[in-house]
Amino acid sequence: MAASLGELAGQLGLELKGDPDARVHGVASLQDAGPGELSFLANPRYKRFLSSTAATAVVLTAQDAEACAAHVLISSNPYASYARIVALLYPQAQRPTGVHPSAVVAEGAQLGSGVFVGAQAYVGPQVHLESDVYVGPGCVLDGDLRIGTGSSLVARVTVVGRVRIGKRALIHPGAVIGADGFGLAPDRDGWVKVPQVGGVSIGNDVEIGANTTIDRGAIGDTVLHDAVKLDNQIQIGHNVSIGAGTAIAAQVGISGSTVVGQGCLIAGKVGIAGHLQIADRVIILGNTSVTGSLEQAGTYASMLPAEEAGRWRRTVARLHQLDELNKRVRQLERTNTSADNS
Amino acid sequence: MAASLGELAGQLGLELKGDPDARVHGVASLQDAGPGELSFLANPRYKRFLSSTAATAVVLTAQDAEACAAHVLISSNPYASYARIVALLYPQAQRPTGVHPSAVVAEGAQLGSGVFVGAQAYVGPQVHLESDVYVGPGCVLDGDLRIGTGSSLVARVTVVGRVRIGKRALIHPGAVIGADGFGLAPDRDGWVKVPQVGGVSIGNDVEIGANTTIDRGAIGDTVLHDAVKLDNQIQIGHNVSIGAGTAIAAQVGISGSTVVGQGCLIAGKVGIAGHLQIADRVIILGNTSVTGSLEQAGTYASMLPAEEAGRWRRTVARLHQLDELNKRVRQLERTNTSADNS
Amino acid sequence: MAASLGELAGQLGLELKGDPDARVHGVASLQDAGPGELSFLANPRYKRFLSSTAATAVVLTAQDAEACAAHVLISSNPYASYARIVALLYPQAQRPTGVHPSAVVAEGAQLGSGVFVGAQAYVGPQVHLESDVYVGPGCVLDGDLRIGTGSSLVARVTVVGRVRIGKRALIHPGAVIGADGFGLAPDRDGWVKVPQVGGVSIGNDVEIGANTTIDRGAIGDTVLHDAVKLDNQIQIGHNVSIGAGTAIAAQVGISGSTVVGQGCLIAGKVGIAGHLQIADRVIILGNTSVTGSLEQAGTYASMLPAEEAGRWRRTVARLHQLDELNKRVRQLERTNTSADNS
Repeated sequence: MAASLGELAGQLGLELKGDPDARVHGVASLQDAGPGELSFLANPRYKRFLSSTAATAVVLTAQDAEACAAHVLISSNPYASYARIVALLYPQAQRPTGVHPSAVVAEGAQLGSGVFVGAQAYVGPQVHLESDVYVGPGCVLDGDLRIGTGSSLVARVTVVGRVRIGKRALIHPGAVIGADGFGLAPDRDGWVKVPQVGGVSIGNDVEIGANTTIDRGAIGDTVLHDAVKLDNQIQIGHNVSIGAGTAIAAQVGISGSTVVGQGCLIAGKVGIAGHLQIADRVIILGNTSVTGSLEQAGTYASMLPAEEAGRWRRTVARLHQLDELNKRVRQLERTNTSADNS
Repeated sequence: MAASLGELAGQLGLELKGDPDARVHGVASLQDAGPGELSFLANPRYKRFLSSTAATAVVLTAQDAEACAAHVLISSNPYASYARIVALLYPQAQRPTGVHPSAVVAEGAQLGSGVFVGAQAYVGPQVHLESDVYVGPGCVLDGDLRIGTGSSLVARVTVVGRVRIGKRALIHPGAVIGADGFGLAPDRDGWVKVPQVGGVSIGNDVEIGANTTIDRGAIGDTVLHDAVKLDNQIQIGHNVSIGAGTAIAAQVGISGSTVVGQGCLIAGKVGIAGHLQIADRVIILGNTSVTGSLEQAGTYASMLPAEEAGRWRRTVARLHQLDELNKRVRQLERTNTSADNS
Repeated sequence: MAASLGELAGQLGLELKGDPDARVHGVASLQDAGPGELSFLANPRYKRFLSSTAATAVVLTAQDAEACAAHVLISSNPYASYARIVALLYPQAQRPTGVHPSAVVAEGAQLGSGVFVGAQAYVGPQVHLESDVYVGPGCVLDGDLRIGTGSSLVARVTVVGRVRIGKRALIHPGAVIGADGFGLAPDRDGWVKVPQVGGVSIGNDVEIGANTTIDRGAIGDTVLHDAVKLDNQIQIGHNVSIGAGTAIAAQVGISGSTVVGQGCLIAGKVGIAGHLQIADRVIILGNTSVTGSLEQAGTYASMLPAEEAGRWRRTVARLHQLDELNKRVRQLERTNTSADNS
């Protein structure tokens, strides 16, 4: 859908520096954009493209506006303004409704108005889909489930056990919600499985990425509060609780019974051990291992950045000699002290 | 299902300290439990809740019994006893049998008595399901497969290639068993695919978590021995062998041809390189990298715990200066020696 | 299929040291092989089995030929020659063609000649499958898709959004291609979703492992060039570009907008941050964190190898005292200097 810059400025309450009648029909990055396309600048890394971009318009801060050749929409938060413009320029297709003939909806299932169930999907007898829920092709909903108004399971999502999902959830393919947690008690004869009798409770406006897994609770529920955002291939263990608005990047793993606060940002590949408390507004940088509670808001890390491998091997060797190096320094200190005393 | 404490004590051979006629109908954590609920104490972290718990009964060791206000079931292994009580209080629903009308069972497939094949599942022509196998909705079984008596594929499990699975397996949604290993030979013209002609051989009483992948062997089989327990999102490379009773937590990766011993415990996110030997009864702590064989039972680690990011950056900077620090200490030692000699 | 060594030597242009009429019908590892089986030696770790192998023939270099009791096929690249022999001895079954009665092919979908669509699969209305494409059981193809001649989706692959896949792709079960990238703009009221309007563009001869996820672009496409080889459980973020011939092992994660060069080798569990440039022919060792661009070909690492846990704890403690150790050395240097000056 095309729009004029004047319209966009008006709808989003942005200041326009340029021609209100210029029109844009799509978005592209600063370096790839051409006429009719809108771009944005949020990451300073790409500022060098501002002077040469062929975009018709760019969304940026007042401060960056000078450097830009194109028409400018000025925003105090260019990325959020850009997100809203994309939603206007690329309106979502009207969702289909109804049940595809190849889908199986078991007797007993409750489907609200405007529900869609796609090809090859399965909706079990204890499933309650509120109005306007979209169940894409190949989804398997098999358990005591309730999914809130306007939620969307894109395709091949699996939900099992006892699961409550709030309104406007967006769940991507391959996600598995409600599978057993990993509960094993060691005994003389080997492992005894600990039956996982809890469920999963998910608030409103939650997004769950592709192939992410969220285990049911062992006792009580695993909980995702409102507006939790999960990227792909994340593992959420049994009885974890994640606070409202926390966003977690791909391949993070959170072990059982850990409580993560509100408004946290957890970067990719972080691992968090079980039974910990992570405070509100904690930021954890990529690939960090968290083995103790983080009780203060702040930024945490333990990641080692890549080095040329030969240099890295020497660093590792020195690391393993640290204990010895420490002893040598202590020895020198003793010698010096005795020299002073002599 | 409700039970009296006297019944539970009798069935499990536990000592009861309290009222044998008191009844419990469910389980909850110490802090959340109310009347009619049973709890347990295995992790000392939660001991502080013992005196105030509203649970009707708690399973714990003789040593912890004093501190507990509720009725007490005394066990030398409270977690295992708790697991067995949960199985009594929450008996599994009778498994359905038969083939759902929407399932496809190819001609040639052999189905034992009591088999269930759920909605939208596919069972290929060379599949042999022994008695009482449960194939949940959306599963795809496509290859030369045999699955043992009483095994359960919860939903949307995929098994391809030549795979043998023993009795009483429990396999969670999204698991993929028998896909090609990653075999590539570099050649002048690029990569030559190494055909993966092995299979997967899985013993009895194995559990496999959601979205875990177990590759077929390149030559011969990838092997999981009896009672191996795998959590979610684990990657098992081609021709890996895992010894009986070994338990592995989420997001672990084990590269090709590595042999893991019996009774090992491998925590979350551990990475193990290929062609290694891991001895019996090895414990590997979370997020550790294993790049050489571990030939002795014992506990291994290489994980760095999270720190406040500014402090961490200084540590990393110092780490990269270790070589130089070492030289400075050597210089000091030389100076001191020459001073001694002067 | 059985073949004589003379035939194999002829077809692959290898020198034969041994009986051209000896026949092999299968492959096995050096230690497991018996009569009628062929093996190979590429990893020096297994050289010790050469003298005792019961294999009928072994593929190896001229240099290793002396030590081998069996007939020998001499190759300058034994692993690649072995790969080609396996392809001869284990010819792939003729692919079936046609659409399984339980599959759903929506009106509008275009299917070339020789296409197969397996049981319980779904092919949406905007899907174009070129000739000889194999869509295995349970696959979900739902979007504006084109898949090139001879490509194979083994089973339960999901492709959504706007995706182009070249010729001869091999995609393993559970892979998800084209799901939304993780795009969120923070705003006063919380997260604003950034609509992901790009697609995925995949070249020829690409292999994609089980449960790997490849996100669509936020703007423009996520790109995998020709002959990219991806193992299982890899996460490729939005707008990542991966150069031709690059091979990536399991559980690697590459964050958004990073550009990886050609001919790179990335080992298991590596994490690469977003918006970086990785040069051609870069090798990254397992479990390394890449947080800055790697602008030179070469080998990179930051992984710490496992140690006995007690020793490791002492190393970590020393690591955290590095700043202090550095100060102590500086103090010693000052003392020494003042001593010299005195």
